[in-house]
Amino acid sequence: MRTSDRLRNITGGGSDGWDVFYRARKMVADGKNVIELTIGEHDIRTHPVILDAMHKAATAGHTGYAMVPGTNDLRDTVAKRIQDRTGVQTTRDNIVITPGGQSALFSAHLAALETGDVALYCDPYYATYPGTLRGAGGVPIAILCKPDRNFEPEYADLKRAAKGAKSLLINTPNNPTGVVYSLETMQNIAKVAIEEDLWVISDEVYDTQIWEGEHISLRQLPKMEGRTLVVGSMSKSHAMTGSRVGWICGPEDTIADLINLATHTTYGVPGYIQDAATFALNAGEWLEQEVGNPFSRRRKIAQRIIGGQNIVRAIPNSGAMYQMLDIRATGLSGEEFANALLDQELIAVMPGESFGNAAAGHIRVAMTVPDDAFEDAMERLCSFAQSTLS
Amino acid sequence: MRTSDRLRNITGGGSDGWDVFYRARKMVADGKNVIELTIGEHDIRTHPVILDAMHKAATAGHTGYAMVPGTNDLRDTVAKRIQDRTGVQTTRDNIVITPGGQSALFSAHLAALETGDVALYCDPYYATYPGTLRGAGGVPIAILCKPDRNFEPEYADLKRAAKGAKSLLINTPNNPTGVVYSLETMQNIAKVAIEEDLWVISDEVYDTQIWEGEHISLRQLPKMEGRTLVVGSMSKSHAMTGSRVGWICGPEDTIADLINLATHTTYGVPGYIQDAATFALNAGEWLEQEVGNPFSRRRKIAQRIIGGQNIVRAIPNSGAMYQMLDIRATGLSGEEFANALLDQELIAVMPGESFGNAAAGHIRVAMTVPDDAFEDAMERLCSFAQSTLS
Repeated sequence: MRTSDRLRNITGGGSDGWDVFYRARKMVADGKNVIELTIGEHDIRTHPVILDAMHKAATAGHTGYAMVPGTNDLRDTVAKRIQDRTGVQTTRDNIVITPGGQSALFSAHLAALETGDVALYCDPYYATYPGTLRGAGGVPIAILCKPDRNFEPEYADLKRAAKGAKSLLINTPNNPTGVVYSLETMQNIAKVAIEEDLWVISDEVYDTQIWEGEHISLRQLPKMEGRTLVVGSMSKSHAMTGSRVGWICGPEDTIADLINLATHTTYGVPGYIQDAATFALNAGEWLEQEVGNPFSRRRKIAQRIIGGQNIVRAIPNSGAMYQMLDIRATGLSGEEFANALLDQELIAVMPGESFGNAAAGHIRVAMTVPDDAFEDAMERLCSFAQSTLS
Repeated sequence: MRTSDRLRNITGGGSDGWDVFYRARKMVADGKNVIELTIGEHDIRTHPVILDAMHKAATAGHTGYAMVPGTNDLRDTVAKRIQDRTGVQTTRDNIVITPGGQSALFSAHLAALETGDVALYCDPYYATYPGTLRGAGGVPIAILCKPDRNFEPEYADLKRAAKGAKSLLINTPNNPTGVVYSLETMQNIAKVAIEEDLWVISDEVYDTQIWEGEHISLRQLPKMEGRTLVVGSMSKSHAMTGSRVGWICGPEDTIADLINLATHTTYGVPGYIQDAATFALNAGEWLEQEVGNPFSRRRKIAQRIIGGQNIVRAIPNSGAMYQMLDIRATGLSGEEFANALLDQELIAVMPGESFGNAAAGHIRVAMTVPDDAFEDAMERLCSFAQSTLS
């Protein structure tokens, strides 16, 4: 028997652009001493106080079916947090808890799209985006974002693509670039969304990791509340990647429909994990700072080292855990650079090409190893770039 | 903005048939002493040894992204268990771990169906079935199963419905009836599936709770391995309903496609929960017996009490945690009976009508309260049935 075409078509065929990543993993498995700056996962684990809160909830008996929309406590906590951060009135009826941000992305697109609708996303993009849109029955169309605009989408490109489209997926702070979209960019996105009657799915899972400037949630811009589905998660803010707990914040009626979807697709999220998330969100900012500070420190290390040479150019990363580097001056593609760096220096980075067409000639550095190893890797990376010219 | 029609259409409109349930819940909230025999959730919690294994895994650091297909340990454990129970060769490549059985049901139908394909299911049915098929883009068609055939589907009805259909969803041991499908029924299902080229999604989440006879997995019948997706779960067998961990067992190529779907919809299941599930499955049968024995005891209590009267007729339940009762001799519908029983005796049961058309004139009793309360409730239920005749 054949699997359905729509499942077989999710990946879209061809290389998934993660060859360097897999090759690095294999070298590590073979005992090689590779510094991996590849994936968006913290080098610390979930904090013990969060795990203790989880165990306490579980042993106290919160092991049966939790409410499908999420526990009242967690929905209230998330709603209050969003209201405090954005000024937009938000209640639990605007929130559905999901098993992670990826599930939220998928569900939000099921809510926005009919099968066959055009779904826009910005290139460069997080690896699962096009497949998620296809999985939800959409026809994904990329909006190319330019390196000399810090990979932020421009009004004219948004406007052109939006004709006939049904939704737009944005991500700020951005993975893979670390760029925090400017107010102007956010206003352009809102303008096009209103003019062309788009749903916007706004992936804001890095919203607590801002190193410069300010994060603007799309939902707080005028007239956007009714057409924005904000995706949030505990993964990046609290180093709870493995716990798979996130949410969608949106209009009440759509959230009600999404709760109904949850009843038929996931049937809720473990209650003890939700209790742990509630605890973590109410524990104060020290927990988030403990998770975020290493990236802030390493970003400064990278800036210092990159500032000392002029081959590699840094895309200004104001948030998240990534540094995108323009290596076009070496004459190599991102893939060529990443492969050579892995072979010669045992340093693994992601080629920009892994994140679409827009970031060709770039590499993404995940700042997810201890400071001293990171400093060493950045220095050798820059020396390597220099060496390609001689 | 409007939510997509496909989301809005999941419920199919009208009452969801759970009015008695909600009314009972409200009475409990108002302080009334209602005995609830409504939902399929154990009256015990997840065993502390399982929760300890979970906490140990989490504090040991298994809090990052787990492998999306499931951990090797859990996939190997599930595969071995299935092979031991069915004799069908099974490896980790036949298994994808899902966040619960409901997620497995939804994903399996996404794998089997293109949008608009006809998806069959048996009536009476578990509450989420038709919505799950609609959510996956299918057109659900019910096969009516007759009370005098213990609600098992018959060859002629299966054959007629199968013309032009793409998939069939079965559930044995069955919720809501507690019936374990006979070998003859399973052979009829296999015959029709092969003749009409159907995928069969076989929901076997109650497979450890067999009180009489034998559970047959559809996948173990000749020529069925390549067209069967078996849904399993830790929820019912190990009282881990809230932990949301289940699996799909099927052909390797379809499992590979389902893993790809998981990457784009759920991104895996918490590693520490998978470690707890692995521990539980390897802990030996005592854990499953501790979970299942109460239902076996209460089934005997029900049989004794029902045997002492002749108004209420029991559908022979050989498994699971339910007793379906034929109350047509009272002249009442299932809904009338359930509402009157709730008002007069403060006993809450589910009307058969909540599970489709086939079980009209029946009620479902969940054997999920302590033995003494259960005995008292069954006695009063039978007396109440008697009283409706006078």
